Amino acid sequence: MKPRVRFWLAVATAAALLFAAVAQAQTDPLPSWNEGAAKLAIVRFVQSTTEKASAKFVPPEERIATFDQDGTLWVEHPMYAQLVYCLDRVPEVVKAKPQLAKVEPFKTVLSGDREAIAKLSRKDLLKILAATLTGMSVDEFSAEVKQWLLSAKHPRWGRPYTELTYAPMIELLKYLRANGYKTYIVTGGGQDFVRAYSEATYGVPPEQVVGSAGGTSYGYDKNGRPVLTKDPKLLLNDNNAGKPEGIHLMIGRRPHAAFGNSTGDRQMLEYTKAGDGERLAMLVLHDDAKREYAYGPAVGLPDTKVGAFTQALYDEATTHGWVVISMKNDWNRIFTFEK
Amino acid sequence: MKPRVRFWLAVATAAALLFAAVAQAQTDPLPSWNEGAAKLAIVRFVQSTTEKASAKFVPPEERIATFDQDGTLWVEHPMYAQLVYCLDRVPEVVKAKPQLAKVEPFKTVLSGDREAIAKLSRKDLLKILAATLTGMSVDEFSAEVKQWLLSAKHPRWGRPYTELTYAPMIELLKYLRANGYKTYIVTGGGQDFVRAYSEATYGVPPEQVVGSAGGTSYGYDKNGRPVLTKDPKLLLNDNNAGKPEGIHLMIGRRPHAAFGNSTGDRQMLEYTKAGDGERLAMLVLHDDAKREYAYGPAVGLPDTKVGAFTQALYDEATTHGWVVISMKNDWNRIFTFEK
Repeated sequence: MKPRVRFWLAVATAAALLFAAVAQAQTDPLPSWNEGAAKLAIVRFVQSTTEKASAKFVPPEERIATFDQDGTLWVEHPMYAQLVYCLDRVPEVVKAKPQLAKVEPFKTVLSGDREAIAKLSRKDLLKILAATLTGMSVDEFSAEVKQWLLSAKHPRWGRPYTELTYAPMIELLKYLRANGYKTYIVTGGGQDFVRAYSEATYGVPPEQVVGSAGGTSYGYDKNGRPVLTKDPKLLLNDNNAGKPEGIHLMIGRRPHAAFGNSTGDRQMLEYTKAGDGERLAMLVLHDDAKREYAYGPAVGLPDTKVGAFTQALYDEATTHGWVVISMKNDWNRIFTFEK
Repeated sequence: MKPRVRFWLAVATAAALLFAAVAQAQTDPLPSWNEGAAKLAIVRFVQSTTEKASAKFVPPEERIATFDQDGTLWVEHPMYAQLVYCLDRVPEVVKAKPQLAKVEPFKTVLSGDREAIAKLSRKDLLKILAATLTGMSVDEFSAEVKQWLLSAKHPRWGRPYTELTYAPMIELLKYLRANGYKTYIVTGGGQDFVRAYSEATYGVPPEQVVGSAGGTSYGYDKNGRPVLTKDPKLLLNDNNAGKPEGIHLMIGRRPHAAFGNSTGDRQMLEYTKAGDGERLAMLVLHDDAKREYAYGPAVGLPDTKVGAFTQALYDEATTHGWVVISMKNDWNRIFTFEK
């Protein structure tokens, strides 16, 4: 080969390689994920379940993926956003029923004493939940949540809660949907609360949100127009065993992929992995105190009760082949607002 | 104009008109519907909610249409298919628990005495429902229903129940889906029962079936595999007020179109019509004793309790602008198996 020909051939090869690399970078559906076991598990799962020739091909109608929300899709520390919402609503509730101002736990909430509020019992919290999440129409409730989301800010980042979603998980939702998966949120949080922003925030429509759900009562307003009023009766406690039970109630199919971050997601992941063929179960591990938070026994820290990742859960993940996602190592970016 | 030119112009015009008529006939999405008020209401609704320039345009994500099943999508007389299923299952249940053979109402069912079975009380029927619809895993139940559907035949037509769907309604489901509507079944029947065949029979996936639903319990089988067992606890009685309540629980949006045939659908139609913008509410009237059945006070016949179309419902339809579909006059074909 003449040197000049060899030179141009080398240039052409380099150009082709460069083009391929650029094309790959441009089309990487998961750019916020570092190369590693977690990203590889996702890509392999999607390829093996969606390529027609694959032995593990899953028909499009059976492609269901379920995501926990708090701590899996967005920040859950120092307090669940919905609990902040309920506490923030207390003054309005007391304005409508002034006699509550002198009654616990409303008195403590109105005092603004953070330490005292943090010490409220589970029973007290349930009273606050009932007072702020029920008694209004479903349309009024949805409007109130949307209004609150416009002004409420997370204490650490000073941004709306809906901006504190994890960029790698948003990419994952989109990647799965682009491959024919129907993405569901399966949350211990309130179904109607999450539905108020799920479509705008996650691209997940209200009918694909499974959450803790109270009953409603059909009736008529003073003008005779039909109205659905939120009842204090709990129909579905969508935590722990309630997650697979809620999935059956609302979806009626076993997911092929499930994502969580705490013991509340254990049964959902077990149920998912126990299905035939290829199934993917993943747990987000909060081990990045610098960029987000580190908490839970699995990273050698105290159990904060908010999103507990226990050692037992870590052991079950190892036993069953669930993939643990290290926020610190697997994600090169945490939030969408970061560059 | 010269006679020859006039002649060819007439031929060309006739050919064009013929071509247009043929094209329209070929593309008519509702060929089993006679021209008339019912068909016109459907076509106008779809056009006004899906054409971008329309003042009543509905964004694709909000296009929800809900359908009652029994008497609206398929035959409900002389007995709901699911009730036939439950009665047919009794021998198997007794085989597993022989002591039931001597206990009512199982004894009567086993006797095969049709008159006595028809007289069973509501309380007795609930015992049969509990014994045949709960206690097994959700997967076992689904398999049993599918197996039954392969052999059970309707007493009048001698065909499987899944062949006794109304051709005009199947066309309507497809027409709405082709125009971006998500079609849901909202049935007083059992959610898990209908899910066993909804996709194959109606093109409606399990996650778009809202029905009367019992709870499930998450547990483990003897091999340690997760299993969901059907509980006798009723979570949602999806009839009457339960229909809009079930729609909120499972979908979280108000439908833009709803279809029913009895008083059990009244609240669903009210709720649908009370929404903003264009909404369509329709009721199938069983007035065709020859090709299907005629029943209910609205056609001057006794209330058979199975799919009651009362005079009060007819009056409410007139008041609220719900469109009544006459099976006799609006449908040129009842079943898909007819030519």
